Amino acid sequence: MSDKINRIVLAFSGGLDTSVILKWLQQTYGCEVVTFTADLGQGEELEPARAKARLMGVKEEHIFIDDLREEFVKDYVFPMMRANALYEGLYLLGTSIARPLIAKRQIEIAKMVGADAVSHGATGKGNDQVRFELGYYALSPDVKVIAPWREWDLTSRTRLIEFAEKHQIPIPRDKRGESPFSTDANMLHTSSEGKVLEDPWEETPDFVYSRTVNPEDAPDAPEYITIDFEQGDGVAINGVGMSPATLLETLNDYGRKHGIGRLDLVENRFVGMKSRGMYETPGGAIYHLAHRGIEQITLDRGAAHLKDELAPKYAELIYNGFWFSPEREMLQAAVDYSQQKVTGTVRLKLYKGGVYVVGRKSPYSLYSEKVVTFEDDAGAYDQRDAAGFIKLNALRLRLLGRRDR
Amino acid sequence: MSDKINRIVLAFSGGLDTSVILKWLQQTYGCEVVTFTADLGQGEELEPARAKARLMGVKEEHIFIDDLREEFVKDYVFPMMRANALYEGLYLLGTSIARPLIAKRQIEIAKMVGADAVSHGATGKGNDQVRFELGYYALSPDVKVIAPWREWDLTSRTRLIEFAEKHQIPIPRDKRGESPFSTDANMLHTSSEGKVLEDPWEETPDFVYSRTVNPEDAPDAPEYITIDFEQGDGVAINGVGMSPATLLETLNDYGRKHGIGRLDLVENRFVGMKSRGMYETPGGAIYHLAHRGIEQITLDRGAAHLKDELAPKYAELIYNGFWFSPEREMLQAAVDYSQQKVTGTVRLKLYKGGVYVVGRKSPYSLYSEKVVTFEDDAGAYDQRDAAGFIKLNALRLRLLGRRDR
Amino acid sequence: MSDKINRIVLAFSGGLDTSVILKWLQQTYGCEVVTFTADLGQGEELEPARAKARLMGVKEEHIFIDDLREEFVKDYVFPMMRANALYEGLYLLGTSIARPLIAKRQIEIAKMVGADAVSHGATGKGNDQVRFELGYYALSPDVKVIAPWREWDLTSRTRLIEFAEKHQIPIPRDKRGESPFSTDANMLHTSSEGKVLEDPWEETPDFVYSRTVNPEDAPDAPEYITIDFEQGDGVAINGVGMSPATLLETLNDYGRKHGIGRLDLVENRFVGMKSRGMYETPGGAIYHLAHRGIEQITLDRGAAHLKDELAPKYAELIYNGFWFSPEREMLQAAVDYSQQKVTGTVRLKLYKGGVYVVGRKSPYSLYSEKVVTFEDDAGAYDQRDAAGFIKLNALRLRLLGRRDR
Amino acid sequence: MSDKINRIVLAFSGGLDTSVILKWLQQTYGCEVVTFTADLGQGEELEPARAKARLMGVKEEHIFIDDLREEFVKDYVFPMMRANALYEGLYLLGTSIARPLIAKRQIEIAKMVGADAVSHGATGKGNDQVRFELGYYALSPDVKVIAPWREWDLTSRTRLIEFAEKHQIPIPRDKRGESPFSTDANMLHTSSEGKVLEDPWEETPDFVYSRTVNPEDAPDAPEYITIDFEQGDGVAINGVGMSPATLLETLNDYGRKHGIGRLDLVENRFVGMKSRGMYETPGGAIYHLAHRGIEQITLDRGAAHLKDELAPKYAELIYNGFWFSPEREMLQAAVDYSQQKVTGTVRLKLYKGGVYVVGRKSPYSLYSEKVVTFEDDAGAYDQRDAAGFIKLNALRLRLLGRRDR
Repeated sequence: MSDKINRIVLAFSGGLDTSVILKWLQQTYGCEVVTFTADLGQGEELEPARAKARLMGVKEEHIFIDDLREEFVKDYVFPMMRANALYEGLYLLGTSIARPLIAKRQIEIAKMVGADAVSHGATGKGNDQVRFELGYYALSPDVKVIAPWREWDLTSRTRLIEFAEKHQIPIPRDKRGESPFSTDANMLHTSSEGKVLEDPWEETPDFVYSRTVNPEDAPDAPEYITIDFEQGDGVAINGVGMSPATLLETLNDYGRKHGIGRLDLVENRFVGMKSRGMYETPGGAIYHLAHRGIEQITLDRGAAHLKDELAPKYAELIYNGFWFSPEREMLQAAVDYSQQKVTGTVRLKLYKGGVYVVGRKSPYSLYSEKVVTFEDDAGAYDQRDAAGFIKLNALRLRLLGRRDR
Repeated sequence: MSDKINRIVLAFSGGLDTSVILKWLQQTYGCEVVTFTADLGQGEELEPARAKARLMGVKEEHIFIDDLREEFVKDYVFPMMRANALYEGLYLLGTSIARPLIAKRQIEIAKMVGADAVSHGATGKGNDQVRFELGYYALSPDVKVIAPWREWDLTSRTRLIEFAEKHQIPIPRDKRGESPFSTDANMLHTSSEGKVLEDPWEETPDFVYSRTVNPEDAPDAPEYITIDFEQGDGVAINGVGMSPATLLETLNDYGRKHGIGRLDLVENRFVGMKSRGMYETPGGAIYHLAHRGIEQITLDRGAAHLKDELAPKYAELIYNGFWFSPEREMLQAAVDYSQQKVTGTVRLKLYKGGVYVVGRKSPYSLYSEKVVTFEDDAGAYDQRDAAGFIKLNALRLRLLGRRDR
Repeated sequence: MSDKINRIVLAFSGGLDTSVILKWLQQTYGCEVVTFTADLGQGEELEPARAKARLMGVKEEHIFIDDLREEFVKDYVFPMMRANALYEGLYLLGTSIARPLIAKRQIEIAKMVGADAVSHGATGKGNDQVRFELGYYALSPDVKVIAPWREWDLTSRTRLIEFAEKHQIPIPRDKRGESPFSTDANMLHTSSEGKVLEDPWEETPDFVYSRTVNPEDAPDAPEYITIDFEQGDGVAINGVGMSPATLLETLNDYGRKHGIGRLDLVENRFVGMKSRGMYETPGGAIYHLAHRGIEQITLDRGAAHLKDELAPKYAELIYNGFWFSPEREMLQAAVDYSQQKVTGTVRLKLYKGGVYVVGRKSPYSLYSEKVVTFEDDAGAYDQRDAAGFIKLNALRLRLLGRRDR
Repeated sequence: MSDKINRIVLAFSGGLDTSVILKWLQQTYGCEVVTFTADLGQGEELEPARAKARLMGVKEEHIFIDDLREEFVKDYVFPMMRANALYEGLYLLGTSIARPLIAKRQIEIAKMVGADAVSHGATGKGNDQVRFELGYYALSPDVKVIAPWREWDLTSRTRLIEFAEKHQIPIPRDKRGESPFSTDANMLHTSSEGKVLEDPWEETPDFVYSRTVNPEDAPDAPEYITIDFEQGDGVAINGVGMSPATLLETLNDYGRKHGIGRLDLVENRFVGMKSRGMYETPGGAIYHLAHRGIEQITLDRGAAHLKDELAPKYAELIYNGFWFSPEREMLQAAVDYSQQKVTGTVRLKLYKGGVYVVGRKSPYSLYSEKVVTFEDDAGAYDQRDAAGFIKLNALRLRLLGRRDR
């Protein structure tokens, strides 16, 4: 394998950092750079990225701008939601779940255009570099990976701006000064971290939030919605059938309005340090609880408890960037197997930052009023069975008690 | 072992059901019945229980009314909270955690008064019978257990009332008719189930709630509080040191006021069926999130993730009644080991049903601004290390990719 | 549902106990009894069972004798072996894995002949009653289950013999006296327990073993064999393709000859007590290690370790009788997913009770001499990557060490 | 923190490699090197290491040769054995468990002599570098770690020999040529890997084994021994009390004689590749099975199964070098809690490579002949309890069966 790079596919947002990277790659490697800009519903115009790429000499056929929104929700967000994954008990993994899709598409493009290298704009302290690169390597084991933030000498904002000025890269007015925090966004969430958020004792300032109203400013009346699920995935809101991405966007609208899905978290990064982030996952927070709601009546206890035991590991794998790994796929196989009858309707109340499951029904419900009722159950359950059940569950404890107590 | 019972210790609330049981035991077994009424902070007068027991002929020295509130919170609620236990992802185990303490005290009294049997008023369909009886058997392997609801023929409310009337047991006015649902309460929570709650599609009616205001009726302004933790346990609120029970009661007041801790759940009982319950855990819900908050900065990742993997099993053990089991104690040993430096302060915002951790600090914080900062970190972290880290994490995926992709 | 039984399908071995049960069922329920005798390779003649059933008045079309050997190995033993399941670290689950198949076939026959009840000859202290009945209930939720050993009054051997004599049931000469231990057998193993085995300090007497020679009597020279695997299942021995049952039988022959697969175990029964058993699993013990051997070169680490973490739970489920449960099926889905490339050849040395994997090869091997070699690896692995790998794995421990040490 | 190194503590075996490293460190860093040679029962003379260190100018007071045998077995091997740890189902972790002790002692010496750096002779492809360095960093977060194999240019054996010749480092006759494989040894085991072992299809040649006779050459008669355990640790053999190290040495003698504990394994390294090793763990293999034997009668099922579920993760942590981590310590706390009554005697048969537990007894036995017996149990167990036990365990499966089958 020679070290000479011929063509690089760059994950390109069109922002200042990846514009600088684009130029730096062209200069440093003296080769063609192909830009790839993904629409993951981050809510930004993508055409300016095309203009920028053109301006910096990227060939027309080497500018890729792809709408991945449906694929993102259908093949990444929904499978993850089937597992009820929460990292460290609370985090809905909004950034983590987008990285493997970007990596996958980047590798597809590399194969298409005959590139031998890929590059991204993630820094050397974060998790995203790991997620991108594990994806690259899993899907294209011999690809060359270039991570400029770990390699170049533009180690301060001042030097980055100087480089941009020197190479006539447009610098947005608000990027001249230091941004007060850094963000990542896609259809599932927006994350913010750094600077004003770095002291975990200080409350997140209001200006950091962009995807949700403050619960205090949310409507004074609760709103009720229903979500229909089929085989573990959302298919309709208030009875109206929707594609995965449309469904998530619709839930985002509800979540934004009612101030739902804000999370202030100090988490453990895969690279070894703790960081403090602020996440907004408006639609995802609603969806997560709704999915639990429909599982409550359609999932057997054995399946449900096994899922609960597997979920922390599953979440950790996604957080750490192991989406394309046999162990994540094995867990997915187990989870997906369990979802065959996770079909039905959940009713939710949304109010001032809160999501409350208030009803659930299903043609496949395992809940039996007849069995559970305090009333006469017509023999559906023989209470005397409980005596034997308890006696045999107690047997080992009694033998132990005789020895130890 | 002869079958003749000499003396029975009954878990006695003083309500209609356990009063009927008291009489029925006296009649059926022709022996002395000792009553034990526990104050677990359920918020009811306990002296009426004494009067009732007297009225039914229980000897003065055989009437036990014990205040177990501090022991309950210190030795049961707090250890459980150290584990971040949630049953089926959501339930704070308020009923489950009280049963082992009642069982333990009942067995202690049985030993004190020389009783050879214990009895309780839990029905044959629920989990509580299991929790009581596993506790009894673990602590006193040869004790005789009498579960009237599984044995007698008072299988309808009408017959129960008839029995009460016939034996001049006072019947509270509101118990003549059918109660619209059934409840259990202690300092940690109130649970409600049955009757009006039996259709899981129907929203819980407002009159079911007793421990919290409706979030819609909660104050329009958020309130901030701090909780101080030492070695994993809460010790102060807003800087004021408190005993465990006082601390939980104080949080209950905050939770009640702000409508916090309501949960509508369809859960899987240990005895095999699904049931729908409504839980109010006002203080516990606040405490649970606060504990996670302080762990975020004081717990190492390895410890935190191991705890997350063990928590579902730990919660299941408590739910199923295995508090007094070697496996619960082993998990507790692991959890407690992790809490040695879980010391510090969490700041929380309470608002309309929501609890938000907004700040945490600790003399033992593992969060390092110096390491995590986007700014110059003065060599605390070498970004180039990440390259090797990723390469070796990727190695097996690359070997796999070469084979499979 | 009425209590009147119309027709019962009995799991019928043709031995004394199930013959007595057959008669007892006819008498007690006054209904037709259908006999089902499974050939699971237990190595007994089955035609005598037919004769006995006839003799006791079972209609010709109600006598079922089915050869289930291939189904047993293909659909039960092999899937379990894919999971490397060992109960309590050592036991290959030979009895446990046969029960669900018998239950399944019994239910199929019940549906065929319009029976409303099923019955078996397992006692009330063992695991087998649970395994049979959980299978029955899972596959036919409303079937009536009759477990004579828990119901009748033939509670001693003497009374059983009396009953047999009275009803002219042939009593094998060796059954008049007490058998010195009790056994179960199928193609995978023979288990022995009870009587002479009940003191776990006493060595198992030689006459208990029936499936293997004593290692001391095994050949003095080792023997080498190969097993070929495809997608996780054995397909050939010494290069000769075989059906699943033939393959297992062939391994049984090797195992018998070399004294392989004896296990003396004190285990924990699902019904709560400890029991001591002696197991002979000649072919299974060879197969188990061979399967691990082929996985060593074809399974990725992530998959392998996840399998190892799941295996104890999987084994427990089978031991406890939960073969037909969603959680076992979910785990199977995960395990099976991992086996797609578990293809190749394992070479084994068999000698005096020992099985040694001495070689393995595969077209899908993930083992790379090029990467692992101590010699020059031509850049396949950059040793400097290890520095970063270690540094970032150490980071959290260093932060912790600064705080705690 | 300056980069200037003042004093280095080297883990020094006295062999060629670490002698070259000693010289290289002196030259490269121009500072004092302190040598530390651990006696872990590897069976080599250690005084030659002293002579060599002297020869190379190490000050007398800077030559440390410590007998760590008792500490090794008592504080590392035994705790690990309590957990029944097996890496990838088979490997007794003989190399892995020695590394943390060496690292710990090295750090202690560094503190004693005021050294600011530590160094070891492990290569950049293996696990040992990770185990050493994670230990160093955990115990001394700011220590400087020097790993010559990852840093220097002596990348071939020829260059290493040249360097040794040039610096008059004595070269053992047998080290001039290429060694046919590489080994590591301590009291628990000897491992061999590389060269002649690199093709996993080729059987390990006989000359590789050094700690055990070939089973074929072992005595033709079996030998029986007993091991006494107290609280989970071995304390006596054949009734003779022994210190931990003496006990393990004695078992090693038995194991060697009977050809016990050979393992040919392809395993997954933490650094990402598969490697093939041959392990001899004669005493450890006996001890491991004996410990399982005594647990069989003294450990409750709940404790035993929890241990089995935790063991793979525990083993992985040790293998990967995380001995000094909170999660390993948490698991140890759980394991140790379970061992309080793991006291009693195990009887074993040793024969031609095989270890067979043939008897176990304990004053704390939970095995109850009275309960388990096929004979009349005088009411110790009521078989009718099993009916209720099964019915309630089946309930969820029946509800599921009604829905799905």
